Amino acid sequence: MSQTPIEYLESHRETFLAELKAFLALETISTLSEHRPDIQRGAEWVSENLEVMGFEHVEIMPTGQGRGQPLVYADWLHADGAPTVLVYGHFDVQPVDPLNEWLTPPFEATIKGDTIYARGASDMKSQTLAFMKALEALLKTGALAVNVKLIIEGEEEVGSPNMASFLREHKEKLKCDVALNADSQMVSRDQPSIVYGLRGLCYFELWVHGPASDLHSGLFGGSIHNPAQVLCDLVSGMHDAQGRVTLPNFYDEVRTLAPAERAELARSPITDADWARAAGVKALWGEGGFSTVERTGARPTLEVNGLYAGFIGEGSKTVLPAKAMAKISTRLVPNQRPEKILGQLESYLAAHAPETVSWEVKQFAAGEPVLLNRDSKSVRAAARALEETFEVAPAFQLLGWSVPITNHLNDELGVDVICMGFGLADDGTHGPNEHFYLPNYYRGIASYLRFFQNLSKGNETD
Amino acid sequence: MSQTPIEYLESHRETFLAELKAFLALETISTLSEHRPDIQRGAEWVSENLEVMGFEHVEIMPTGQGRGQPLVYADWLHADGAPTVLVYGHFDVQPVDPLNEWLTPPFEATIKGDTIYARGASDMKSQTLAFMKALEALLKTGALAVNVKLIIEGEEEVGSPNMASFLREHKEKLKCDVALNADSQMVSRDQPSIVYGLRGLCYFELWVHGPASDLHSGLFGGSIHNPAQVLCDLVSGMHDAQGRVTLPNFYDEVRTLAPAERAELARSPITDADWARAAGVKALWGEGGFSTVERTGARPTLEVNGLYAGFIGEGSKTVLPAKAMAKISTRLVPNQRPEKILGQLESYLAAHAPETVSWEVKQFAAGEPVLLNRDSKSVRAAARALEETFEVAPAFQLLGWSVPITNHLNDELGVDVICMGFGLADDGTHGPNEHFYLPNYYRGIASYLRFFQNLSKGNETD
Repeated sequence: MSQTPIEYLESHRETFLAELKAFLALETISTLSEHRPDIQRGAEWVSENLEVMGFEHVEIMPTGQGRGQPLVYADWLHADGAPTVLVYGHFDVQPVDPLNEWLTPPFEATIKGDTIYARGASDMKSQTLAFMKALEALLKTGALAVNVKLIIEGEEEVGSPNMASFLREHKEKLKCDVALNADSQMVSRDQPSIVYGLRGLCYFELWVHGPASDLHSGLFGGSIHNPAQVLCDLVSGMHDAQGRVTLPNFYDEVRTLAPAERAELARSPITDADWARAAGVKALWGEGGFSTVERTGARPTLEVNGLYAGFIGEGSKTVLPAKAMAKISTRLVPNQRPEKILGQLESYLAAHAPETVSWEVKQFAAGEPVLLNRDSKSVRAAARALEETFEVAPAFQLLGWSVPITNHLNDELGVDVICMGFGLADDGTHGPNEHFYLPNYYRGIASYLRFFQNLSKGNETD
Repeated sequence: MSQTPIEYLESHRETFLAELKAFLALETISTLSEHRPDIQRGAEWVSENLEVMGFEHVEIMPTGQGRGQPLVYADWLHADGAPTVLVYGHFDVQPVDPLNEWLTPPFEATIKGDTIYARGASDMKSQTLAFMKALEALLKTGALAVNVKLIIEGEEEVGSPNMASFLREHKEKLKCDVALNADSQMVSRDQPSIVYGLRGLCYFELWVHGPASDLHSGLFGGSIHNPAQVLCDLVSGMHDAQGRVTLPNFYDEVRTLAPAERAELARSPITDADWARAAGVKALWGEGGFSTVERTGARPTLEVNGLYAGFIGEGSKTVLPAKAMAKISTRLVPNQRPEKILGQLESYLAAHAPETVSWEVKQFAAGEPVLLNRDSKSVRAAARALEETFEVAPAFQLLGWSVPITNHLNDELGVDVICMGFGLADDGTHGPNEHFYLPNYYRGIASYLRFFQNLSKGNETD
């Protein structure tokens, strides 16, 4: 007698874990050009896995006219009359530095208790593999009853620069009724969530240039405006005493939260003490007049992601640096427009940089903030899948980070996008010792599996 | 017929240049522990050269109970009844980063026109070798008529941490009537100088600690006080709008310049335009109410020597860094006390660092400011040597940098210290493309040679 999909899942726990470890061993760092061959290997690993699972049509597709990182596309379209769901994931990861702070090797997945440690464990190889394994369980048991299209990309961590044009170019091929973005998270280990808002991102590199080359700080010190000092002045001035960003017109288009929405957000089970513990800080901080959940989900921010000037090696070097650099990113919320932020930053710098130095700004990623439908047939299918799996109704959540794909799916394909994922705020994504709570790898597989089943049942009224 | 010392010098120009190139090829970087073998080789090179020159007694001596870098001592004490001069130099150099900004390899001396390019060309291998070659000319022509003791150290660039104890320990051995510090500079290519004041130095590394590890800036951004931002706030606050340092009590003990001294300093032939050109900046900057020569020689300063936080590699990484670091040094003038500065910095941090972060300060070097005798028999012997060589009387100059040996010689041996050297402000010391004006290598040799001769003549009244 044949297995049910859930039975298949149960009987394949060991195999699915071994596959996760193999997936995590791939050094698919998309921000560093020397890892380009690893990205190619990542695309091949994913496509081979999909073929073995039972996808007949799998292809590695170029992006950005071959200048981008390759993307894996696959489809299974044999459920005549049933809806088509497009599922999104990525297989690339962030760099691993500072490497010396990792307690276990970032590309050798290590399990301690219920937790698996590796770069990409949370963001987002566990989740990408979870929806793949959900589809495997449905395919291998002959139970898949929706049409499925997959796009699994290799450059989300550099801001998905070629995704919008890819979606536009392949609009017909990617046509669907609903999209699932698995690059998402949940509130706490046992509280699943559906994310209905994501912040946008603009990422900049600011250089302040002073002397033509590094100078002796004793010889010239006191007579030259030190560019590292000027950089600190400029960065310091980007927030006021209330923690508000001072770029001109930065808040002009920020959506005001309705009292009802604020009340709903305030019901988050995560306390400030929980949040401080997750971050490992003694006290929280933020924009005056807003709660933590609002500060991280509904309000825009400006963060320093990196600082560099002069001598940073061991010991002392009495140098007056020629230049200083800050990596700065802003998180945007509806209805801010990413294309306006560079101009705001440049206006700020033009107004505040002294005449003694020159400056330049390079912009890297720009992603729009997004606000999604909170009530539709597909959203209810997802909510039910989560409730069946976790035995608790999902929370609706605003996320602080940026997943450009969400906007691209929303804008280019014009369908409902469901953000359903299983990462946690304290998983250490992007930092050392990134990890993932393993029971939610299996509950994630089950949730995705039930979502696909619920979609096919079509027993919701819209 | 035997040569005069000056004729010896003229006939050995090629040899002396070849020896300078060989000396500059040694990678004697004292701040980086991996170069410790190079420091040992530097000490051996210097001592072998001194032996070949005719010094009978040369030894490589340990410092700091063997934990410091080795120092070369040599003496020649056959001028009965004549004064004894102790000559100081160092053979170590600064690190070479940023290496990619060097136009020629830092340890392959390259001559373009009248200039020699290499790490250490100006600070201070050319000058160390210049006094060695002056002594060679006197020894080889049988004309040396003063007693000479040499100390040539290998850790000046880390602040000569073991020099004071070395001088104390070997007080009897180092007994002398006058000391010559060759680690000095001149005003311009044709204007020699005797330096009568040097600034002191305190060097710190400040760390600001926030989250326990690097966080995802989208997830936590807006709710955590970013330690890179806090570091910028703290560094920015260390100067006020008038360019004054804000550490509490920083200026309390600063010596007030007398109007006559200010008038003399104002006679410097270097204009602000010259200085801006030397530094490669479009405009100068500094403490309100003081001239450039006062700002760099007679006023204390605080400089940022390095900044580091988060991700500084290629591209973007959306990290909220766990910690941020600034290397900060203060230059001190009489009568500031270096041992008070750490406390002033800590008071500032205690008053201004927010409760959301923690901080720590490490102190590296601490050197005292010094003010030297401007009129004595030995100072006049030096002045005459410079005038005979350059055909212009030397200027008396305040130097902005720190040469801890000057204080140590002053304090521990209690003799007049003459600071006579041939570097220039725009030699690019401590930065990329360090260089030295070659004609002053030969004029330096001649000046030192005449100084030793003038000392022995003793035809000055004191």
